[in-house]
Amino acid sequence: MENIDAVFKSIDEHQDEFIDLLRESVAIRSVSADPARRGDCIRMSEWARDQLRTLGAETSFWDLGKQQLQSGEELPLPPAVFGVYGRDKSKKTLLIYGHLDVQPAEKEDGWNTDPFELTEIDGKLFGRGSTDDKGPVIAWIAVLKVLKNLGIELPINIKFVLECMEESSSEGLEKGLEDNIDKISDVTYSCISDNYWLGRNKPCLTYGLRGICYYFVEISCARQDLHSGINGGSVPEALNDLMWIMSQLVTVDGQILIPGIAERVAPLTKDEDDLYDKIDFCVDTFKQETGSHGLISDSKKNLLMNRWRYPSLSLHGVEGAFSQPGAKTVIPAKVIGKFSLRIVPHMTPEATDKLVTSYLDSLWAKRKSPNTFKITSGHGGMPWVADFRDANFSAGSRAIERVYGMTPDFTREGGSIPVTLTIQDLTKSPVMLLPIGASDDMAHSQNEKINRENFVKGMKVLAAYLFELAV
Amino acid sequence: MENIDAVFKSIDEHQDEFIDLLRESVAIRSVSADPARRGDCIRMSEWARDQLRTLGAETSFWDLGKQQLQSGEELPLPPAVFGVYGRDKSKKTLLIYGHLDVQPAEKEDGWNTDPFELTEIDGKLFGRGSTDDKGPVIAWIAVLKVLKNLGIELPINIKFVLECMEESSSEGLEKGLEDNIDKISDVTYSCISDNYWLGRNKPCLTYGLRGICYYFVEISCARQDLHSGINGGSVPEALNDLMWIMSQLVTVDGQILIPGIAERVAPLTKDEDDLYDKIDFCVDTFKQETGSHGLISDSKKNLLMNRWRYPSLSLHGVEGAFSQPGAKTVIPAKVIGKFSLRIVPHMTPEATDKLVTSYLDSLWAKRKSPNTFKITSGHGGMPWVADFRDANFSAGSRAIERVYGMTPDFTREGGSIPVTLTIQDLTKSPVMLLPIGASDDMAHSQNEKINRENFVKGMKVLAAYLFELAV
Repeated sequence: MENIDAVFKSIDEHQDEFIDLLRESVAIRSVSADPARRGDCIRMSEWARDQLRTLGAETSFWDLGKQQLQSGEELPLPPAVFGVYGRDKSKKTLLIYGHLDVQPAEKEDGWNTDPFELTEIDGKLFGRGSTDDKGPVIAWIAVLKVLKNLGIELPINIKFVLECMEESSSEGLEKGLEDNIDKISDVTYSCISDNYWLGRNKPCLTYGLRGICYYFVEISCARQDLHSGINGGSVPEALNDLMWIMSQLVTVDGQILIPGIAERVAPLTKDEDDLYDKIDFCVDTFKQETGSHGLISDSKKNLLMNRWRYPSLSLHGVEGAFSQPGAKTVIPAKVIGKFSLRIVPHMTPEATDKLVTSYLDSLWAKRKSPNTFKITSGHGGMPWVADFRDANFSAGSRAIERVYGMTPDFTREGGSIPVTLTIQDLTKSPVMLLPIGASDDMAHSQNEKINRENFVKGMKVLAAYLFELAV
Repeated sequence: MENIDAVFKSIDEHQDEFIDLLRESVAIRSVSADPARRGDCIRMSEWARDQLRTLGAETSFWDLGKQQLQSGEELPLPPAVFGVYGRDKSKKTLLIYGHLDVQPAEKEDGWNTDPFELTEIDGKLFGRGSTDDKGPVIAWIAVLKVLKNLGIELPINIKFVLECMEESSSEGLEKGLEDNIDKISDVTYSCISDNYWLGRNKPCLTYGLRGICYYFVEISCARQDLHSGINGGSVPEALNDLMWIMSQLVTVDGQILIPGIAERVAPLTKDEDDLYDKIDFCVDTFKQETGSHGLISDSKKNLLMNRWRYPSLSLHGVEGAFSQPGAKTVIPAKVIGKFSLRIVPHMTPEATDKLVTSYLDSLWAKRKSPNTFKITSGHGGMPWVADFRDANFSAGSRAIERVYGMTPDFTREGGSIPVTLTIQDLTKSPVMLLPIGASDDMAHSQNEKINRENFVKGMKVLAAYLFELAV
């Protein structure tokens, strides 16, 4: 830890070099969703491997197999990059996950600058991938460069797992990790920098994610669509049944009406409860940013808990009904209503499926409709919650205090980052989410950016975290 | 009436000529919805005018102005054909309406034959427009040809109004009729052959059509779509509000829940009630043909009344929500629910709008949602009901008895044919719908046809009707 000031000084001095490195990576158009850019994704994996190799890591490619396109065509998946720094059995081993593929971006979508040319304006580094997730990966590489240049020995062993398919459901990664489980079985801790601060000003560490259960309710009243003039009044209509069912899932203020769900939610502990008051989050700003006409609660604590630690149920839409602008006098023959539940500990997809199915079946029995009714559940995902008081989070927290002079907020997120659970389960190690970008970085949107300050201070946090972990 | 047997004989003898005439008209691809076919529609009007002129009618074109396409382009509307046979003030005057434009059709859509080449298979004449509505128009022309060839004087004056935009909302026709109101003010009766028998075997005369009121319920919860992971549980969702509203419009068995609607429905008279028992309609066949899983009633009388003489409410769909296949975790920001009411005497669109708006407003007040809520009504249409005991229907009924040896069913339809009311209102004459095609003619669908027998007997019915009207 005596070297940390020298490390911070070197990061400051060389920051423009690291921004150039980020620029180089942003210029590679690694859009994983675009089959035409698959070559760029593979080139991106090669670029990352070469960076790690130049720094002295043992590197290898994990072949993740092929992707089957809907057209029937097969495309090679970009290989995952595996890099190993140090094999000192007396040291802890940190697994660092990141991804180097990006969301699609075109200048015409409304970017102010070329999305694949990193451009600094007023201390903001604009470019696709600048914050999601090339910036954090380059920050790690920068830290290793600095340590190498200063001749400082790594306080812990590091294993990198970098992929280029994250924006396309991390296709192939889970199998890649399973196939190479012997190479990651010695991991002590894992760290993922692929999310964002809750706001713009205060760093946070993220210890929870909700899971998801997705449902399809299919109701059919006839073989083909009917005409509401000719047939209106003759058949019990499928869409009417569906709306009746879907209107009984959740109240206007978000209370889930499915019996048994509330009972499964993990009770609030005092430690967790205490976290909320300190969190830097403004209800009014949230309301303005979403443009909501109203919120389910005006209390900061309730609102955050509703988004993070309680389940929520959202209605998404209807397939098979009239959905275009204008007027059409159709009685849809078959409609599929879609809704999902965000699940939290101690809920599981399996138990949730049972509760949902049983409730919908009982509603349907009450309906006494002659129509056909079918519930299907989509692929479910477990929630993830870590112990925010463990050694991993303590190291992260102390690193942030050292750089920012403040204790981070301990936050959760309402969505899912499935790789988190995969890594935790396969490495049997505690995982921490350590975001370095701010809430307004516009990941997935136009004019994605990372602030120069977040990027540079992020490197310092990551460096300090390595040393704190070793303590 | 002493000539009628000679007329029938001549129709039988010359039927192949009239089928050739139908073939000639079917070959003109007068698809009014296709701007590229506008020239064919105009040619179709010219063809019809020339036919009437050759038969000795005074003919003229009514210029209906221009059509504004969504592209901004303007296209000329095909002119309506106005034809006058006879101006004998001692005789009654019959207005005959028909249309010569057709729905789109391509062999690739699933036609067994070229849709624009009339093809006879097993006594069925397949071709686009064969039954909707070129067949009935040609049947009228055939009747006049026969009378001319036999040297029989017309027992009444006839005025033809033929258009080529019916399948595109009869654009321009109402204004054309209004502009020429002095030319049709002497009309005694009107007759429209643009619908179908209720079944395949028994002729009918149609005395009622339902009107329509169409509604858009717009609810908005945010400025833009939200992510159900990040935001689920924080905002009262627009789609949830919408489904709650839309589930309270009509019961599973079709009972409309909007107060005040039922009270406005014209009471059932004994005369009308007596009609239903005799009607040739099979509930099981209807169920099979629609492929319905269940019907609102298994009683023939109730089912027909529900479709014809009682209002019905149908839900059509939702605009703005997720409607594609698959799973999307969106919270739609703004959704527009669509439903319509088929209205019957003594309901009016204006009164219905008031009842619907007032009911929805009261539901919304109960909902206590912070979201924005707006109801818009589309263009409403009045119902139409004629007196099935009037002289027009009596003449039609006697004509059918003479040809088919049976009394026709007196039927209504659940949908709308707006020109019916327009003609009734502008001519101040009683209108009768006199279908000649059968229920399985597949108007608007693939393999549209008219049976040779329906076509030939249809000519005889129209001829007999002319003489019966004069009695």
